[in-house]
Amino acid sequence: MLDELKLQISGLRAAMAALEPDHGRREELGSRALDHALAYLDQVPEAPANRSWTEVFSRRLDPEFAEEGRDAAEVFDYVAACVDRPGFATTSPRFMAYIPGGGLFHSAIGDFLAAVSNKYSGFASASPGAVRLENTTTEWLANVIGYPAGAAGTLTSGGSIANLTAIVAARDAKDSEGGGAVYSTRFAHHCVDKALHISGRGKAARRMIATDERHRMSVEALEEALEQDRAAGIRPWLVVASAGTVDTGAVDPLADIAGLCRHYGAWLHVDGAYGGLFALCDEGRHILSGINLADSVALDPHKTLFLPYGTGAVLVREGRHLLDAFSASAEYIRPLGDSEVGPSPADLSPELTRHFRALRLWLPLQIAGVSAFRAAQAEKLALARYFHARLKEVDGFDPGPPPDLSVVAFRYRPKSGEPDRFNERLLRYVQDEGRVMLSGTRIDGHYTLRCAILSFRTHIEDVDEAIAALLRGVAQLEGASDR
Amino acid sequence: MLDELKLQISGLRAAMAALEPDHGRREELGSRALDHALAYLDQVPEAPANRSWTEVFSRRLDPEFAEEGRDAAEVFDYVAACVDRPGFATTSPRFMAYIPGGGLFHSAIGDFLAAVSNKYSGFASASPGAVRLENTTTEWLANVIGYPAGAAGTLTSGGSIANLTAIVAARDAKDSEGGGAVYSTRFAHHCVDKALHISGRGKAARRMIATDERHRMSVEALEEALEQDRAAGIRPWLVVASAGTVDTGAVDPLADIAGLCRHYGAWLHVDGAYGGLFALCDEGRHILSGINLADSVALDPHKTLFLPYGTGAVLVREGRHLLDAFSASAEYIRPLGDSEVGPSPADLSPELTRHFRALRLWLPLQIAGVSAFRAAQAEKLALARYFHARLKEVDGFDPGPPPDLSVVAFRYRPKSGEPDRFNERLLRYVQDEGRVMLSGTRIDGHYTLRCAILSFRTHIEDVDEAIAALLRGVAQLEGASDR
Repeated sequence: MLDELKLQISGLRAAMAALEPDHGRREELGSRALDHALAYLDQVPEAPANRSWTEVFSRRLDPEFAEEGRDAAEVFDYVAACVDRPGFATTSPRFMAYIPGGGLFHSAIGDFLAAVSNKYSGFASASPGAVRLENTTTEWLANVIGYPAGAAGTLTSGGSIANLTAIVAARDAKDSEGGGAVYSTRFAHHCVDKALHISGRGKAARRMIATDERHRMSVEALEEALEQDRAAGIRPWLVVASAGTVDTGAVDPLADIAGLCRHYGAWLHVDGAYGGLFALCDEGRHILSGINLADSVALDPHKTLFLPYGTGAVLVREGRHLLDAFSASAEYIRPLGDSEVGPSPADLSPELTRHFRALRLWLPLQIAGVSAFRAAQAEKLALARYFHARLKEVDGFDPGPPPDLSVVAFRYRPKSGEPDRFNERLLRYVQDEGRVMLSGTRIDGHYTLRCAILSFRTHIEDVDEAIAALLRGVAQLEGASDR
Repeated sequence: MLDELKLQISGLRAAMAALEPDHGRREELGSRALDHALAYLDQVPEAPANRSWTEVFSRRLDPEFAEEGRDAAEVFDYVAACVDRPGFATTSPRFMAYIPGGGLFHSAIGDFLAAVSNKYSGFASASPGAVRLENTTTEWLANVIGYPAGAAGTLTSGGSIANLTAIVAARDAKDSEGGGAVYSTRFAHHCVDKALHISGRGKAARRMIATDERHRMSVEALEEALEQDRAAGIRPWLVVASAGTVDTGAVDPLADIAGLCRHYGAWLHVDGAYGGLFALCDEGRHILSGINLADSVALDPHKTLFLPYGTGAVLVREGRHLLDAFSASAEYIRPLGDSEVGPSPADLSPELTRHFRALRLWLPLQIAGVSAFRAAQAEKLALARYFHARLKEVDGFDPGPPPDLSVVAFRYRPKSGEPDRFNERLLRYVQDEGRVMLSGTRIDGHYTLRCAILSFRTHIEDVDEAIAALLRGVAQLEGASDR
């Protein structure tokens, strides 16, 4: 029996050898990957910000998954043509659509290192160093938004899970039996609805709070809604405020909202996925004043700290609420700061085994230094004001009031024709040109264009290019309509 | 105003330059990272599988986060000493504790490439090539477990979110108003409870179904519970079966359970995070017979396909249930197979912006080839039977019946003294020695040791070492107690 097994095992071992390349082969694969990355990054400055899909369909691997391994050169070549290039280039300095990320090179190194040593970052006892590094990073984020000691947090895959995590903590703390009401503006991100749905509160009473002329939550309207509910015997459970809406980058008046939440006993959750981390720079901290008063905050380092996609964060001011909601340990591990390593991420999160995400955030903070991040954020805020000021000087453009953060929403008033249709065509012109990537949204029924400046690669000449592309589009479209 | 802004912007641009290293600096950083990785991997074969925490506390960066960037050499050195080495070495061929992962080098390359080009894999329109690659990979997983066309799935951060995603889909499909009952054995992973809690079904009636002598769900006991509930007017909602329990690797009788679920109108979810993907090899497919009848399955490529931590998967047989639960699009994108790219991951998942995870799974499948994975899985199953057979030959060890998959649960019967205490001390001995890493669990109150063979690096000589370490431990402990 043992001999038979040994013989079988020996054959299988030979057949699986391709899973463990030796030193030389690892070096070769690694060098090839580095060359691939360097070549990709070398073409980023001049490459289109939006490219056609052609390659995705014109080239296929046949079969898609082969029994025997393919030549690495063929595989890398396929990735370059069919994955790296088609569609949006979020890496482009001229990508100013949606909410740009960018993707720091240092983070790519961090991901590589994390995967190689494969530390288990869910529990402190498994990887004390990895968990300590994750906890110091989370603590650093908590300091950025001004949270006191006793706060806790965890790194997530992105803003949706961060918002979900916060909303589950809010539910357990303040709405365990259901029946509470939820307040937000119509500019709240749809992942808030998704999180309410997932957490079993999809049918909670939703109050859409009116906004002011800058699309910020009206404190008066919120107070009225809270008061009405209280009078009607409906318990205010959760207020979701935005620290940077996706549509216009509007920051709700957080300090005033926090005051109302305290008064009415509601949990204040701030969705700061786009804007919350601007608190790192002086200008942003001022705009975000009051964010530290929130009960919970969702943040996205893969937006405002320029990381590649894959890292959000949730912070809860009274960390025990996060433990209450998610710890499956019989005994709680002591909150952040009490021990040398800190709590285990698995006790603060819906996840257990997961990616060691801290390294992709920690490594660039270490190698580039914090001050570079501050400066880059301040540059983005200034570039948005610059874009706004330049657009204001162009006849026909209506950029509204100066931006709260780094998103400028604007419309063109065409000499003739339907404005919504014109702005849609203008956006299409710019996107088809592909040099600059902008996006659009509907605000109160009006089609509105957006310039979102957040890539660390975007500088003043790129913003000038965005203006130039818009002017080319207007000339083309108005010329066409004059004919 | 514009001039003033330009001046400010120019100063900030200079101050943030460290975020964008030039070609030469990228090459230098990349080469340093590759050297770091090669050095780490070179020491893996002989390094302990469990190491002390000393370095984590003896070395600190002061301050933890500095305004100015640190020298890269210092940072990499810190990572080597304080992150890579302390605690468990899940990369070790002798790591056989909990559920090992391993971490294919090809996947580390995949993560690096994904971060460099930073494709937005949430929506097909943003990154058609990345989304197509993710969908073909998910489809490949669906084929592995034998799902029919019309199935849909998505890659998650791990098993917990995969189970959560499935349970929310099951809730929306079969328990939208609540009140349904949930059935599982006591060996179901605790993330099932966590998922029920998160999804607002933490108080659902839970039926703990008895198990047979091999810790598999008793079909008779399940039928009895379903029948009793139906008679009492309680609707059977969700049966959670295991395709490989964490404790003993037991596979519940899936086909019979599926028959009962159909009869009683319950949703069958199979937690196959550990074992489901053994369906790739012939031996595993036989053991997992019936998994294709489940309504949903959770899988962990970062376990049974040897990836570094960070990739789970959820599959739903009728894909529309996943869309119903998670799509926020006004109009659903057509399910997998109907279009050239397939559905957008954001419509099938609680996530929106997230890591482009497919590359870390797709790349090793391409470069190593599928047959290497099959062989490695078959080797692990055979190694577990080998460990079991060898242990049976050693006087005093009681390894029970042969393992279903690649986890062997066993106890030593000491000549004297309390068996639980002895087995705990035996485990501690092996762990402290550090050469081999095993783990323990309590089964029906009895302290039981586990040998979980799942790393692609674990071969027959490593399993022999595990036996040798146990024998050293027994000799040491029995010698000590004889004295």
